[in-house]
Amino acid sequence: MHAREMISTHPHVRGNTNDALIRCIEECYDCAQTCTTCADACLGEDKVADLVQCIRLNMDCADVCTATGAVATRRSGSNEAVIRAMLEACATACRLCAEECGRHAQMHDHCRICAEACRSCEDACRMAVQSMSH
Amino acid sequence: MHAREMISTHPHVRGNTNDALIRCIEECYDCAQTCTTCADACLGEDKVADLVQCIRLNMDCADVCTATGAVATRRSGSNEAVIRAMLEACATACRLCAEECGRHAQMHDHCRICAEACRSCEDACRMAVQSMSH
Amino acid sequence: MHAREMISTHPHVRGNTNDALIRCIEECYDCAQTCTTCADACLGEDKVADLVQCIRLNMDCADVCTATGAVATRRSGSNEAVIRAMLEACATACRLCAEECGRHAQMHDHCRICAEACRSCEDACRMAVQSMSH
Amino acid sequence: MHAREMISTHPHVRGNTNDALIRCIEECYDCAQTCTTCADACLGEDKVADLVQCIRLNMDCADVCTATGAVATRRSGSNEAVIRAMLEACATACRLCAEECGRHAQMHDHCRICAEACRSCEDACRMAVQSMSH
Repeated sequence: MHAREMISTHPHVRGNTNDALIRCIEECYDCAQTCTTCADACLGEDKVADLVQCIRLNMDCADVCTATGAVATRRSGSNEAVIRAMLEACATACRLCAEECGRHAQMHDHCRICAEACRSCEDACRMAVQSMSH
Repeated sequence: MHAREMISTHPHVRGNTNDALIRCIEECYDCAQTCTTCADACLGEDKVADLVQCIRLNMDCADVCTATGAVATRRSGSNEAVIRAMLEACATACRLCAEECGRHAQMHDHCRICAEACRSCEDACRMAVQSMSH
Repeated sequence: MHAREMISTHPHVRGNTNDALIRCIEECYDCAQTCTTCADACLGEDKVADLVQCIRLNMDCADVCTATGAVATRRSGSNEAVIRAMLEACATACRLCAEECGRHAQMHDHCRICAEACRSCEDACRMAVQSMSH
Repeated sequence: MHAREMISTHPHVRGNTNDALIRCIEECYDCAQTCTTCADACLGEDKVADLVQCIRLNMDCADVCTATGAVATRRSGSNEAVIRAMLEACATACRLCAEECGRHAQMHDHCRICAEACRSCEDACRMAVQSMSH
């Protein structure tokens, strides 16, 4: 992704990038794509009825990650309260999706990889919140 | 919108609609559209430089409202924690956007109407959070 | 929705609203919400395995409608080519979703209402394309 | 991104990945993030009034890329018509955004990088359309 390169050219950022926030943005876009794949892969499994909750959490997580990635990308001046609230919501969505995907990880590789991506994104969101506290 | 009619046919809902949540869903979709218009209308004003912060908050609010509307629509079984976190984030995004739009309300009708829509959506999000506490 | 009221205050629009485009914007946001509900309601049905294709088309239709609503709202100066391409894509997504939902309309009220909403949105997209030809 | 790894585990895909489509999905998510940064960076420039059209095309391109990435990720069975229409719309949005960003490339590094990302995404969309013709 071009996230780091792009953000370093932003007139309000020049030479002062927040590495934790950039990592978080990259993870959010990645996790949105991963959860969208996992939902569709679950829909393609024979025992789809066992994966209904997984599909729902995947879709919620994808929506929240997409919005969080956009809001965190947009350094909305004094809008720190919104970035922070979205990072918290995103960490929660990722945690719950990772838990559910984890239950199917032995059966389905897409759930195993998705659980890892969600945990990694959750971690990135928490680190980004911390990086904004200073 | 078909929100009420559709949600009342959901197999997990039948005859037990949460009116506060339905109003909130409708407000979120409306507010997303309103903020997208306001951002574009601000970009069309002669003194666009005075409206930069307004445009940014409009875009953040539109993204958060879109995601909140989808997550709240999707009654993700036990995913109450995510709905709640998004409703809180959305109320914050709406409040901050309403404050900024309010500053330009006398100059620009789109900012005046957008501030009203944001305040109404903020209120609907808070009522929806309360309705989930029981 | 505030779509008409907001768009009529846009500095590039004043007193010269395109009624077909405004109706289309409202239909896109409505259809996005309707399809998101239908996907989730389908996931809640006992025979979810029979509704897999319906859920997928619902999700595609919701994503395309959301993007089309935003792009059509944003009167991007000379960006008519993109609005037009999205209106065509949206009409296609709505048509295919309406066909699939129509197959389950007798069994499930949410599919029946969703098929109607999709057909109405398809029609609005086609009328909006025509309105831009002049 | 996990796109390739995830898609290769999809039950309908196993061992038969479409490389052009996977590259396109990755480019769409990247381009959405890049355009969102460019819009916000343009808003931060002193001469924002000269960049209004660029900001609008950036926002349109981000919305279309986000939806195209999701729709292309979701291999909606027989929904090839929608994927194809979205890939065409996305190629158009990317081309027009690249042209406008290209006009500001000497002044602003974010516009230069964004123009490159848009051209690369446009190319990936066209290659993906071709890969689906067989």
